Amino acid sequence: MLINTVKISNSRVISKYFAFIIGRRTLTSLCEPPSQLGDHKPKADKQSWRQGYNATMGDPNLIFQGTMDRFKGITIDSCKQKDFTVNFAEKLERSLKYWKEVKNRGVWFKVDTKDVECLPVLTKHGFNFHHAQKGFVTLYKWLPDDEQDNVPDYSHTMVGVGAVVVNDKNEVLVVSDRFAMIPGSWKLPGGYVEAREYLPDAAIREVREETGIISEFQSLLSIRQSHGGGFGCSDIYVVFALKPLSSELHRCEMEIANVAWMPMDEYLKHPHVHETNRKFVHKYLFFKENGIKIDYEKALHQVLKKEYILFNIEKCEW
Amino acid sequence: MLINTVKISNSRVISKYFAFIIGRRTLTSLCEPPSQLGDHKPKADKQSWRQGYNATMGDPNLIFQGTMDRFKGITIDSCKQKDFTVNFAEKLERSLKYWKEVKNRGVWFKVDTKDVECLPVLTKHGFNFHHAQKGFVTLYKWLPDDEQDNVPDYSHTMVGVGAVVVNDKNEVLVVSDRFAMIPGSWKLPGGYVEAREYLPDAAIREVREETGIISEFQSLLSIRQSHGGGFGCSDIYVVFALKPLSSELHRCEMEIANVAWMPMDEYLKHPHVHETNRKFVHKYLFFKENGIKIDYEKALHQVLKKEYILFNIEKCEW
Repeated sequence: MLINTVKISNSRVISKYFAFIIGRRTLTSLCEPPSQLGDHKPKADKQSWRQGYNATMGDPNLIFQGTMDRFKGITIDSCKQKDFTVNFAEKLERSLKYWKEVKNRGVWFKVDTKDVECLPVLTKHGFNFHHAQKGFVTLYKWLPDDEQDNVPDYSHTMVGVGAVVVNDKNEVLVVSDRFAMIPGSWKLPGGYVEAREYLPDAAIREVREETGIISEFQSLLSIRQSHGGGFGCSDIYVVFALKPLSSELHRCEMEIANVAWMPMDEYLKHPHVHETNRKFVHKYLFFKENGIKIDYEKALHQVLKKEYILFNIEKCEW
Repeated sequence: MLINTVKISNSRVISKYFAFIIGRRTLTSLCEPPSQLGDHKPKADKQSWRQGYNATMGDPNLIFQGTMDRFKGITIDSCKQKDFTVNFAEKLERSLKYWKEVKNRGVWFKVDTKDVECLPVLTKHGFNFHHAQKGFVTLYKWLPDDEQDNVPDYSHTMVGVGAVVVNDKNEVLVVSDRFAMIPGSWKLPGGYVEAREYLPDAAIREVREETGIISEFQSLLSIRQSHGGGFGCSDIYVVFALKPLSSELHRCEMEIANVAWMPMDEYLKHPHVHETNRKFVHKYLFFKENGIKIDYEKALHQVLKKEYILFNIEKCEW
């Protein structure tokens, strides 16, 4: 090996760093080597980590039963407990004592809306809010005294898409929002990406919902990132070139005040078009003139058998 | 005007669609035209929406006081209330009655950890969890009976970065995670983007934290999107080419088992490298050979005076 390697000392135990890794799971897992490597753990072990397992952890009548992960973190789902809120404080105190004894590290409570009465008890015992969605809130507590709490934050980025849709007559598909702060401005169709939706699919869906136009993917064009957006989140806005497969406009009345096919020349000098949107259309022209395309491929992760998409620049004829 | 426009009927009042727009604010606001346009609303009006305003909304001793937005949504912050939890149920019932009468629409409660005892009362009155962070949880209730609740979900995408860092000797900077499921695999340095952090800054920070290497931005290389990652979120992973400005390796002991400068040829055929990482390095070579660069510029939004960054493809000499 020609590599200049900095070796680790092996004195540290693998169980020492739970929380940090929890946050790195996704990235890590997708970067891991294929399963045919010689130095991997037994399959059963990996499998149990991925799916979680219900270890026997104390007397179920006395100690909350949860799902363990390989970092000795434990997740208690209130919906999976019998008589969850009965004698909650006493059971929590017993459980915390037990989890400390057996060296559990991060403790997570996923609390269903019907069980919210336990929340004051949890926060009183040092649990912090971590994230919430309709129907539940998740809190956690870090147990080890001799280790830093490195539990990563939940997602804090809203992801949206926009689309440059140009037809055979060199007209751009534009919309005017019903509730734009400054009415009458012409923008590109687009909106937020839904849960478990791929970015190009979101762009195609938003174009169809807002304008009635059916379209297909051509290229990723640009990415914009900003901070301090909706719900205090940051914002990533990904713009695609989409090829229209229909022409008749059907405006979404709930969202959209106007929809139009606007001649490209007119759009590029229109006073009611924001300069950033103009840039996206210029980018479209640049891609087309230079035969650039940012395509994407779907692939299956070798180990996790999980699908992902990957964007790649290609040369192409538009 | 040559535009084929689908006009709206003006019979609907602007106050009718609050929640949907809340979710579209960021995208919409950044796509709006410059303020010199003739048809915008008075500046004072726009200003008050952006900053929120404390309208006098009923007797403060009887009705919770909150921040109104232009869509007639109201946000109550438990930290900004006097005696928030005193007679909470009665005050909530009076407030909800009042808000319905004055046609408020979405009602949001941001509840500090110290005030969690009010949560069972809120959920009993039909409030749903929306999002939470360390220190608080936010719930909402949709008031109108004759309108669909279109309040958008909170962010559900974890955003991470990775880096292809190649030195003058054509060696790639690689790391091996301490807690990789399959130990010994060589991956690219990287990690999660922090709150209010730009993507390239995150990549530079992660490289420095994990390996000690100081680097600077060269190009965006690729984007990967997948679902079902950490905390059940989707995952966007953005890979950059970074130019190293130092060479001495200082491994982050907490996260990293090994760090190395690995000859490019070796990396491209190494058995302990995942194929996706290999693709990113091939992409780096493709960009370099074809003089492609995806640079970014910082810009200031004309109306909102809010900074953003925008990635753009350029031709360049590497």
